Amino acid sequence: MNTPPTRNIRMTVAYDGSNYVGWQSQPNGPSIQAAIEKGIEKLVGHHCPVLAAGRTDSGVHALGQVISFQTASTIPVGNWPSALQSCLPYDIVIREAREVPADFHATFSAKRKRYRYVIQNWPWPLPFLRQYVYYLRRELDAEAMHDAAQVLVGKHDFRCFETDWPNKATSVRTVLEVTVRRTAGWPMFAPQAMALPPPDGQLPFITLEIVADGFLYNMVRTITGTLINVGRGKWTRSDIQRILESQIRSAAGSTAPACGLYMVQVDYEGD
Amino acid sequence: MNTPPTRNIRMTVAYDGSNYVGWQSQPNGPSIQAAIEKGIEKLVGHHCPVLAAGRTDSGVHALGQVISFQTASTIPVGNWPSALQSCLPYDIVIREAREVPADFHATFSAKRKRYRYVIQNWPWPLPFLRQYVYYLRRELDAEAMHDAAQVLVGKHDFRCFETDWPNKATSVRTVLEVTVRRTAGWPMFAPQAMALPPPDGQLPFITLEIVADGFLYNMVRTITGTLINVGRGKWTRSDIQRILESQIRSAAGSTAPACGLYMVQVDYEGD
Repeated sequence: MNTPPTRNIRMTVAYDGSNYVGWQSQPNGPSIQAAIEKGIEKLVGHHCPVLAAGRTDSGVHALGQVISFQTASTIPVGNWPSALQSCLPYDIVIREAREVPADFHATFSAKRKRYRYVIQNWPWPLPFLRQYVYYLRRELDAEAMHDAAQVLVGKHDFRCFETDWPNKATSVRTVLEVTVRRTAGWPMFAPQAMALPPPDGQLPFITLEIVADGFLYNMVRTITGTLINVGRGKWTRSDIQRILESQIRSAAGSTAPACGLYMVQVDYEGD
Repeated sequence: MNTPPTRNIRMTVAYDGSNYVGWQSQPNGPSIQAAIEKGIEKLVGHHCPVLAAGRTDSGVHALGQVISFQTASTIPVGNWPSALQSCLPYDIVIREAREVPADFHATFSAKRKRYRYVIQNWPWPLPFLRQYVYYLRRELDAEAMHDAAQVLVGKHDFRCFETDWPNKATSVRTVLEVTVRRTAGWPMFAPQAMALPPPDGQLPFITLEIVADGFLYNMVRTITGTLINVGRGKWTRSDIQRILESQIRSAAGSTAPACGLYMVQVDYEGD
């Protein structure tokens, strides 16, 4: 009897983290991982443990989480997205699937990750976005936040931005790029369509984009919370330098809420 | 004893219609109207009937609904938004308030209304937008939709786009402007941030904007459903002309889902 060969499947997944305890399976509620593993089991008839590029927390969203799992299923790889989608809840969306070499590991093969944090900084909160942005009414200086954020670019010990350090063997990471800027909204929320003029003609969102070779626990949310203090005029670029060098978590700002955070993209060798 | 004079208060309101039966109070579930009237009663101690520019259906959203009500409350008008907001659920947002002459009536004084209908037309649905856009995978021709929509501009009998005609004394309305175009998304959903390239470099949303002196029941949703058939290549501009002239509802397309519809702005004489 011929056993079909085991294949390694890689998928790109978007999800709304609002109704989950996070990526990782936990006893206290539904996880993205458990939902996807249940969907795969329904489809192929056996349990396949699923690996992910990053373990997003409760309420954190993903546009481009990458997962991988091994299966002997003979479903053609091009059919995996629609086949698995039919076994998943609406808030988890399979974007694409491909077969990858046996040594591909969604977690350990990742070279770079991109996260995005979205703040709505506007006189009134859009009621549609409560679970999708962090709302702050008081005007923030996005340019000052961007300028101060440049201190983070490069190879540094980021333990001052890690919750409950140490969580990893090393807290040294390399930030390749960080930008903070004002951005326009959804088409249905474009500023020109609002009767209320934006303050000083400003766009309603502040978006932080950060690319690094890896991230510590809560690193993006803590960097955001720290930069918000720059946007408020409480701290300057040199304070961010001082905080980074202090290597003390309590020197940095608070952890911004999960709802504004998106795992956007993961890059692998050869992508 | 001096009774404080009755004042007429006008407010601009945004709301997420997902969890409501619609604007109007109904026995079968929570309405926006009942939530606002309850909030006002909590604040001023007596019931104030609230008028609205338009009665949005269940699941329809608002960025700029206009309401008015009469009250003897002495709360300064500048304090109304924050005071009333504290008595409202998170999915109803008071944008602004002003005092208006006694003869201002949110429904009957309206001169023009702007509605927006948002379609996500993209290889995969954004999981965050299930209740906020109508998702269609198959590619639509937005330019053909825009061209055909121009047939609707002007003063016409729109009964072919009215559900259960006749709902109003007359089904003649004047459409001042209608545009259909592809638009970019939220900052966190910008196409350049997606690993999956957009088909033919196209933007992920199709947005229909329509301004008229008034609208019939389900008019925007039926126009959208009809133009989708143009986008699919099933109908042409001359079919839209034929449908409009037929004055027969069954000649037009289906009613697009409520979730994609936004009441954007209402203009009054003197605004």
